[in-house]
Amino acid sequence: MPVYHADHVLLPEGVRSNVRIDVEGGLFSATEDEAPPRTDDVRIKGLVLPGMANVHSHAFQRAMAGLAEWDAGGKDNFWSWREAMYRFAERLDPDSQLAVARFLFVEMAKAGYTSVGEFHYLHNRPGGAAYAPPAAMAEAIATAAHESGIALTMMPTLYITGGADGRALNERQKRFGKTVEALLGLRAAMRGKAGVTQVGLALHSLRAVPPPLMREAIAGVEASSPIHLHAAEQPGEVDEALAAFGKRPIDYLLSTFAVDQRWCFVHATHMDAGETRALAQSGAVAGLCPTTEGNLGDGIFPLPDYLAAGGQFAIGGDSHIAVDPAEELKMLEYSQRLLHRRRNVAASSAAPHTAARLWAEAARGGARALGLNAGEIAKGKRADMVAIDMEHVSLAGRDGAQALDSYVFVAGRDAVRDVMIGGRWVVQSRQHALEGRARQAYRDATVRILRG
Amino acid sequence: MPVYHADHVLLPEGVRSNVRIDVEGGLFSATEDEAPPRTDDVRIKGLVLPGMANVHSHAFQRAMAGLAEWDAGGKDNFWSWREAMYRFAERLDPDSQLAVARFLFVEMAKAGYTSVGEFHYLHNRPGGAAYAPPAAMAEAIATAAHESGIALTMMPTLYITGGADGRALNERQKRFGKTVEALLGLRAAMRGKAGVTQVGLALHSLRAVPPPLMREAIAGVEASSPIHLHAAEQPGEVDEALAAFGKRPIDYLLSTFAVDQRWCFVHATHMDAGETRALAQSGAVAGLCPTTEGNLGDGIFPLPDYLAAGGQFAIGGDSHIAVDPAEELKMLEYSQRLLHRRRNVAASSAAPHTAARLWAEAARGGARALGLNAGEIAKGKRADMVAIDMEHVSLAGRDGAQALDSYVFVAGRDAVRDVMIGGRWVVQSRQHALEGRARQAYRDATVRILRG
Repeated sequence: MPVYHADHVLLPEGVRSNVRIDVEGGLFSATEDEAPPRTDDVRIKGLVLPGMANVHSHAFQRAMAGLAEWDAGGKDNFWSWREAMYRFAERLDPDSQLAVARFLFVEMAKAGYTSVGEFHYLHNRPGGAAYAPPAAMAEAIATAAHESGIALTMMPTLYITGGADGRALNERQKRFGKTVEALLGLRAAMRGKAGVTQVGLALHSLRAVPPPLMREAIAGVEASSPIHLHAAEQPGEVDEALAAFGKRPIDYLLSTFAVDQRWCFVHATHMDAGETRALAQSGAVAGLCPTTEGNLGDGIFPLPDYLAAGGQFAIGGDSHIAVDPAEELKMLEYSQRLLHRRRNVAASSAAPHTAARLWAEAARGGARALGLNAGEIAKGKRADMVAIDMEHVSLAGRDGAQALDSYVFVAGRDAVRDVMIGGRWVVQSRQHALEGRARQAYRDATVRILRG
Repeated sequence: MPVYHADHVLLPEGVRSNVRIDVEGGLFSATEDEAPPRTDDVRIKGLVLPGMANVHSHAFQRAMAGLAEWDAGGKDNFWSWREAMYRFAERLDPDSQLAVARFLFVEMAKAGYTSVGEFHYLHNRPGGAAYAPPAAMAEAIATAAHESGIALTMMPTLYITGGADGRALNERQKRFGKTVEALLGLRAAMRGKAGVTQVGLALHSLRAVPPPLMREAIAGVEASSPIHLHAAEQPGEVDEALAAFGKRPIDYLLSTFAVDQRWCFVHATHMDAGETRALAQSGAVAGLCPTTEGNLGDGIFPLPDYLAAGGQFAIGGDSHIAVDPAEELKMLEYSQRLLHRRRNVAASSAAPHTAARLWAEAARGGARALGLNAGEIAKGKRADMVAIDMEHVSLAGRDGAQALDSYVFVAGRDAVRDVMIGGRWVVQSRQHALEGRARQAYRDATVRILRG
């Protein structure tokens, strides 16, 4: 395998210059900084970052992005958005699922995401009958990942009740329903499939899974399986948990389950100070989805307290209203700045460059949340990396750490030039081999969904 | 002049289809909707919007975008950012001012901005001595506008004191200093220059201009001149105004001056309920700079109350951390959603599509703030328009109003295809004739500024 030499690299210890990177068998096998290039080194011009994980995706929602930005009554909120999403989801079938997910995953790779966690609950036909084969919708996701080259952690999702009070699924939700047994069967069917790098377990939320069934599902998966769930995205959820369990949702979950590094709490927006500290100390990852949370009006995550308590976080594109890790990190930081009325909220004296800290933490936390041995450019980790084009006009005159700031806060995905996933260049000179065909199929599928 | 025919157009009454648009002498001379195209009509495929005004620009700051995203002490705020900006401003000269502004204005046009208000205070050499000619820095802005094709409202800025207590300018601020007489001279010198469409008056802020001198300057300009000032961007400014004038800044300004439609209050972030209502009723425009306000950690504008009171607003790129009207409008709406925990905050029952309302109001308010007869696709207005590419993948399957939502919230400036300014196509098929040359000169100037 070649040895690469890059001008600037975000290593675990910070941005370093003149770095040699050995890749062998899809892993980084060595790194050395302040090292001159040798004759046979493959030169990577620019700034190299560890690949980013997109820990929370509902791929089908990409095709409805922007369709819920209107409201005739002045009362639109998360719950009315959810109704629009349910109606849209009715129209998806395995073919359109594949077309939408495949283009989305190509877009993700081009934007610097090297892995994705698909929180997959679109299991059944509309009304609840099984597909033949029953895993058809999940298989479409795996095929999309395989063809696009992105590393997929498949998160089949348990979805049983219509609310924390245990009520039955409504007509539209029947499409999402899966017993614990059926879900474990789906997990087994996904393992080892082309395109599936890792299999996790998603428990939709306290609304959709009674805690005894959460426990049963957890008992049925390997000790290494990632466990994800939506938690405390909306104040309404906090009220529902208080009514059903007598505790706030994060508090209840932390006191009911042995939460550890396998867990990812998606959103975790509405926490009190005790929950914030306890979640940080549990070793779980907070799966933040900043642009979706902004779009849905969820609220602002308590980032400073969480970071001060040593909390780990990751980012997710969720509804895919944006497909750009730089935009997620920028939105995360800006929402903090607006709330706290200060700048560089995520910076610290140990890690003064805001973008470098945000990127490094989200990449590391994301790999942990997806159960991947990745997230850093370091010996033994998966060779997932992103080359930022220092020739981009918004990076003119910047050194390495400044270039990373200007990439995240100014240029965004326009500055992503090359992307390696598991040792293979999936994007080179801004080109992905599948892009044109995937775009056309996405466009056709979207028109069919909306007008068909 | 040709008659244009467009599939979808944002007219004053909303998004309409099959619209014929007559342009004569740089103005719209007629519009007709639900009209089939005639043989000689020039077809514009897609969605046509009124051109957007960028009402608040400090062009030189484009070259430092992203350079202040770090902080070693955890105490970074607006005021420390201002120090970094002062240090950067020291390095600008007329040549680099021209190179930076010219590329920025090309970027603006490509993103759908058809006019810009340059709040120009970089008057003198570092230390305060005059350039020869004294207007050299302002002339660079005019030349940049002329070459790029954007309509410029030049806003020469009065800057006299270092604080609301009347203290003298510090060493770095001496570069900005201008007496009222000198400022009126600069205004006269700018009038009629190539590239200058309108000349206004900027009063930097209550920190930098004692109210009697504001009055003197206002008395020296035409009754039609736009009047802009920074107001209530930071809580610190509110405290300073309370100490110096016994009133909050917006309250003080509204009670001291005959504020009307000529005025634009830039930011106006920190207002109490009475100030919000009074500003809305004054007829002044609030010049909101959402991405800069997010970047600087200023705070969140009271949009629902302001709109409910009939307030007009416009958008500005300010520090140019973003150059995209869609991103400004999205950030404005998202910050509201995060604060109020509901969606489509800017929508109303009369204007249910959020993006349509935001775009229409910002375009109209922006034209008013810049003293331009523009901001709507309507008879007698300047022919400034932007064609959005309905073939963009993120707009697949959308109708006109949905396409506008998906452009603003998902695709952003990637979907801007053609831009007409004053009857002339300045951007066609995403190309601006000056772009390559302007980018190279910008890059060279930026490297010189940073390393020179």
